[in-house]
Amino acid sequence: MKFSKDQGFAISLGLFQLLCLVIFGTHFDTISSTYISVSNSTRRLEESGKPTEELAPRLQKVYPMYMDVHVMIFIGFGFLMTYLRKYSLSAVSLNFIVGAMAAQWGLICVTMAHQIGDGHYPKALIDVPGLVNGDFAAGAVLISFGAVLGKTTPTQLLWMTFYEVIFYAINEYILIEKLHVIDAGGSMVIHTFGAFFGLAVTMALGAPSQADQEHNTSRYTSDIFSMVGTIFLWMYWPSFNGALVPSDGFRQERAVINTLLSISGSCAAAFVCTQLMSKHKKFDMVHLQNSTLAGGVAMGATCELAINPGCAIVVGVVAGVVSVAGYAFILPFLEERINLSDSAGILNLHGMPGVIGGLACGFATMALSDHHYGEWLTEIYSARDHRTAGQQGGYQILATVVTMAIAIFSGAAVGIILRTPALFYQQSMKYDDEEWFHVPQDTLFHMPLSNSPPACVEMHDRSHNLSPDINAEYTGLKTNV
Amino acid sequence: MKFSKDQGFAISLGLFQLLCLVIFGTHFDTISSTYISVSNSTRRLEESGKPTEELAPRLQKVYPMYMDVHVMIFIGFGFLMTYLRKYSLSAVSLNFIVGAMAAQWGLICVTMAHQIGDGHYPKALIDVPGLVNGDFAAGAVLISFGAVLGKTTPTQLLWMTFYEVIFYAINEYILIEKLHVIDAGGSMVIHTFGAFFGLAVTMALGAPSQADQEHNTSRYTSDIFSMVGTIFLWMYWPSFNGALVPSDGFRQERAVINTLLSISGSCAAAFVCTQLMSKHKKFDMVHLQNSTLAGGVAMGATCELAINPGCAIVVGVVAGVVSVAGYAFILPFLEERINLSDSAGILNLHGMPGVIGGLACGFATMALSDHHYGEWLTEIYSARDHRTAGQQGGYQILATVVTMAIAIFSGAAVGIILRTPALFYQQSMKYDDEEWFHVPQDTLFHMPLSNSPPACVEMHDRSHNLSPDINAEYTGLKTNV
Amino acid sequence: MKFSKDQGFAISLGLFQLLCLVIFGTHFDTISSTYISVSNSTRRLEESGKPTEELAPRLQKVYPMYMDVHVMIFIGFGFLMTYLRKYSLSAVSLNFIVGAMAAQWGLICVTMAHQIGDGHYPKALIDVPGLVNGDFAAGAVLISFGAVLGKTTPTQLLWMTFYEVIFYAINEYILIEKLHVIDAGGSMVIHTFGAFFGLAVTMALGAPSQADQEHNTSRYTSDIFSMVGTIFLWMYWPSFNGALVPSDGFRQERAVINTLLSISGSCAAAFVCTQLMSKHKKFDMVHLQNSTLAGGVAMGATCELAINPGCAIVVGVVAGVVSVAGYAFILPFLEERINLSDSAGILNLHGMPGVIGGLACGFATMALSDHHYGEWLTEIYSARDHRTAGQQGGYQILATVVTMAIAIFSGAAVGIILRTPALFYQQSMKYDDEEWFHVPQDTLFHMPLSNSPPACVEMHDRSHNLSPDINAEYTGLKTNV
Repeated sequence: MKFSKDQGFAISLGLFQLLCLVIFGTHFDTISSTYISVSNSTRRLEESGKPTEELAPRLQKVYPMYMDVHVMIFIGFGFLMTYLRKYSLSAVSLNFIVGAMAAQWGLICVTMAHQIGDGHYPKALIDVPGLVNGDFAAGAVLISFGAVLGKTTPTQLLWMTFYEVIFYAINEYILIEKLHVIDAGGSMVIHTFGAFFGLAVTMALGAPSQADQEHNTSRYTSDIFSMVGTIFLWMYWPSFNGALVPSDGFRQERAVINTLLSISGSCAAAFVCTQLMSKHKKFDMVHLQNSTLAGGVAMGATCELAINPGCAIVVGVVAGVVSVAGYAFILPFLEERINLSDSAGILNLHGMPGVIGGLACGFATMALSDHHYGEWLTEIYSARDHRTAGQQGGYQILATVVTMAIAIFSGAAVGIILRTPALFYQQSMKYDDEEWFHVPQDTLFHMPLSNSPPACVEMHDRSHNLSPDINAEYTGLKTNV
Repeated sequence: MKFSKDQGFAISLGLFQLLCLVIFGTHFDTISSTYISVSNSTRRLEESGKPTEELAPRLQKVYPMYMDVHVMIFIGFGFLMTYLRKYSLSAVSLNFIVGAMAAQWGLICVTMAHQIGDGHYPKALIDVPGLVNGDFAAGAVLISFGAVLGKTTPTQLLWMTFYEVIFYAINEYILIEKLHVIDAGGSMVIHTFGAFFGLAVTMALGAPSQADQEHNTSRYTSDIFSMVGTIFLWMYWPSFNGALVPSDGFRQERAVINTLLSISGSCAAAFVCTQLMSKHKKFDMVHLQNSTLAGGVAMGATCELAINPGCAIVVGVVAGVVSVAGYAFILPFLEERINLSDSAGILNLHGMPGVIGGLACGFATMALSDHHYGEWLTEIYSARDHRTAGQQGGYQILATVVTMAIAIFSGAAVGIILRTPALFYQQSMKYDDEEWFHVPQDTLFHMPLSNSPPACVEMHDRSHNLSPDINAEYTGLKTNV
Repeated sequence: MKFSKDQGFAISLGLFQLLCLVIFGTHFDTISSTYISVSNSTRRLEESGKPTEELAPRLQKVYPMYMDVHVMIFIGFGFLMTYLRKYSLSAVSLNFIVGAMAAQWGLICVTMAHQIGDGHYPKALIDVPGLVNGDFAAGAVLISFGAVLGKTTPTQLLWMTFYEVIFYAINEYILIEKLHVIDAGGSMVIHTFGAFFGLAVTMALGAPSQADQEHNTSRYTSDIFSMVGTIFLWMYWPSFNGALVPSDGFRQERAVINTLLSISGSCAAAFVCTQLMSKHKKFDMVHLQNSTLAGGVAMGATCELAINPGCAIVVGVVAGVVSVAGYAFILPFLEERINLSDSAGILNLHGMPGVIGGLACGFATMALSDHHYGEWLTEIYSARDHRTAGQQGGYQILATVVTMAIAIFSGAAVGIILRTPALFYQQSMKYDDEEWFHVPQDTLFHMPLSNSPPACVEMHDRSHNLSPDINAEYTGLKTNV
């Protein structure tokens, strides 16, 4: 069944929300007095011998960081992607609906993946850490969204979300429950997966023609809007990496501090490199909007480890340098050689820094002495009761490779589905709100041309009648002057 | 006494702040060692047998959610209302001062209403939950502000604030202390009250002429600014509904999760309906900026109940559909039939969803078994020691009706006062910053026309002298080229 | 060695980050099981007899407020300074890198100042309160940045940051450890220091010529972006003043509430005065963007004291009135008389309100009875075991004078270094992004003039070929039409 342009989106989204509604209504519940010890965190708390009174305080412990993550997903990603000069309305709005659906679907899929893996299907309790997991899945999808920004229809995005979250949950389950690796902030699970999935989708969809690239650029105000996103992402990244780290054993405190140091390092590195590597020898807003964040990505897996603070900064600096080099040299090279079209440069912000993060965690795991963790060693690494530090480090690096493989193959498959004209209407106007959004029509010079001369002429002819408030910044000319 | 245009605002605001200052200075205090058990929360904690050491941790429990509510009031409402193309400075600035005054006055009036009702006047202690109550009152006023956006003077807004908060506090006292209903997130107390009060005010003030509607529309950047408000409101709504819910009995955790599910449902519903119901068959930013939030409004009263998660989504979906239908069909119908002028469409975002929320709470109260709440039943419903579930549900629905009645009558009375030319100067320029704000004058095409030809001509004639940085986005032409 | 324009920034920043990296790597650490009782907060907790289990919960207590402070530094200051019409990209970007470097360097310098003062050099543990101290140092530097906004090169800003933080740490050490004064929110340490340091720097650098002032003004959208900064600063100021106040003895709760009351008072005062004092007799966005915040500055030192709530409002009102008067009368007077060039008006937002805050704390300390504090008296005032209230008040006022003296002398010295042409390339284009940033070139009317007629003419001639999406708001004309 091919979805028509006009109805495909509403039907797809309606069915998607209905599916979530039915699963939430039949297989999930919120906690109440009828539940004291059923599933999820509750069960885990019980097994660890903690009394159920500790359930309620979970809200205070996780909720503030959850809200920070929420801001990163909806304001951070949403405004970061408003940088295109004619696609700002689409960027923030499509980020909004994709994020809202991916967070629901992510909570469902991650929960179900673990239940299927365990072969045990109790009714699942929704709790705040579960909501964080939903937002993490949304993060992966929105990273992929960055690669196809301006080139896919809203309908295609919804179906990409539907498929991607399923593979995301499978990959997450394999890494956490089968490979027993750590990845609190998602260097591998979120960033590497989302980036290589999105790059595979965009490769499958193909690159727009040169003529279609016309609006693939920013304007002055869109660059400022984009910085709203950048700075919220930068500020709240310690919460992102630390949100699901338990506070026992100083792990959460380390996660926050290491992330702050690393992302400070990438901020400095991006500012150093932008002037050196940009072709204008000036600061390039693209670098400042993206590469400043690379240190947060790269510290995702390592954040809770007891690494030296200087090493945290080094990881961030390396990620920042690689990220700017990606924008300046690597992506243009790939665009030319393999016709890669990566709208927001997710290879540079999430792909390469994510891989750096996976490798950094592997090396840090091998190198750090166990006495830093004391009794918490096996709480951090669940498999360190039978693995050596070297083996665990090897598994961490293996997990990075596994993630890339799953992401590329599933992304390519989804991309092939999305590009099939028999299934999906293909976007005709690139990087342009007009095809899907009712764009304000009252701005200066935008008038019905068929029945009146262009605005400029009119202004010329009627110069003495012009009211003093005609103002290009915010006033449209009246159509019926 | 009629306030002149120039002095009315400063005198009104000065007196208003002086009144708050005097009442705070004489009848309120902050806690110190001289108080251990005097009033408010302190007393309540003592009566409940809890030691006073629990006072201090209150700050950690409520403060992060209070800050989220604060962001919703000042950034959320403030930027949501910047959507008008020539009224953005006024929208965010007037939202700022109205919010700041309403929050102070709300804390005073809500506290005094309870003291008057109890006939007991101890010095009142200001605490963080009290600050949340102040922000909630500000929320109601800013909802009403949406109805009259661009049509009232700052002075009229101040006096509307002064009167509205008094009636808000009376209505809140009646609902909580007399009808003994629950309404943690204010479906009735905040949203229904604020919406119908504002609609009554705008009906009393009358609708602007067709010519005055010219600037009642958005421009490209104002639509993006507005999304800053929308998304902060959307993200932090779980904190809004959960801020004053105690964490005992998993109530606060449920409030947060039910709100998230409901507002996710309204987000999906708004995106489904906007394309179907808008006349352009495209996404309409008005719907995305407002109707996505309807699920938060509609879950205000029900949020702490142990409803099925699917039901939370259903409530949100219904509210979202009704809200878009309001913008697409109901409001245009009312504009034509009863000459209703509702600038920001508060009927659709707060009025109808608020009523849906009141009714949903009534039905959920009737339908849900007591065993979900265990020992906390009478902590949630203070009157369930003598009322049946059915009776309590009836009271919840009654409270919605009472709220609408009080809001409409008090709003109409205030509107009649505000429209009296003998008392208030009436706004002459509609939806336009120019009457009250010093607007930047240096934008392109905005020049003194009396002593120079229009910019366009000048550019024509002097084409070879144009400096390369003349740029419509941010550069004005020099007046004295 | 003089830094060339092109390489000076990258080299300076690279060295600066390398210095931080080396110091963090060799002299700092994060907590792990190998540390249980080494230094900093840990030691203090131990000395106060508290068990080390209290270490972990510190994260939950301070972290949410730390994130609020973080938002104030990077979004608050960053967007507040985007108000210039052609300098928005620079404002938010330079605020970003200066803040990120100053926060790292501030953590280092404040820690080292206390270690040098104590003559004791254990490895320092980084903890969340330490991160707040870093952000506080960044706040002081960004205040100074406001004075020189648009007039200094990025390289000069980096070196100003490097020097200023050193003097900041010295002044902070003298006030806290030698004069034993209180200043939780930094009325003296942050605001007075940052303001007078910045004013001394800008005096040393000299004022731009009249012609260079052309772009020292706002445009419509930059005024709205600036309000994003203002409102986040306004909302989160209670967290700023309260972040490092212990929660014992209701001190933190009072800090939050007193700050809210004071900053509400300054908001009202600014709105009252702007219309009365502005030359247009209209609301002036400069006043609303800045003077509304004066009450937060002025309550920085006094916030944790048990002052009457009315007094908190009075302090805010006084600061707000003085601040607007500063913009309307005092700064123009100083501009004319002593050629002071204070871009963002930090004298009015931080200088005078900071001094008011220092004096207010002195008088409140003298006036308030000890019985408000009970057993916590010497926890608040560490020197009250041997000082009378009057003596302590005198020391508070002395600390304000000491701060101004250190700030002015160190600022003047740094300004003289920065203006030396042998050391630093001097900014040539004032208040203009173009010199350092690659600014989007595709906006309407911005075309290569040498090979085509100006846009307006082109539109005239080709009126029938114009595509309907030509739109001054976001569309550039194609260069090769």
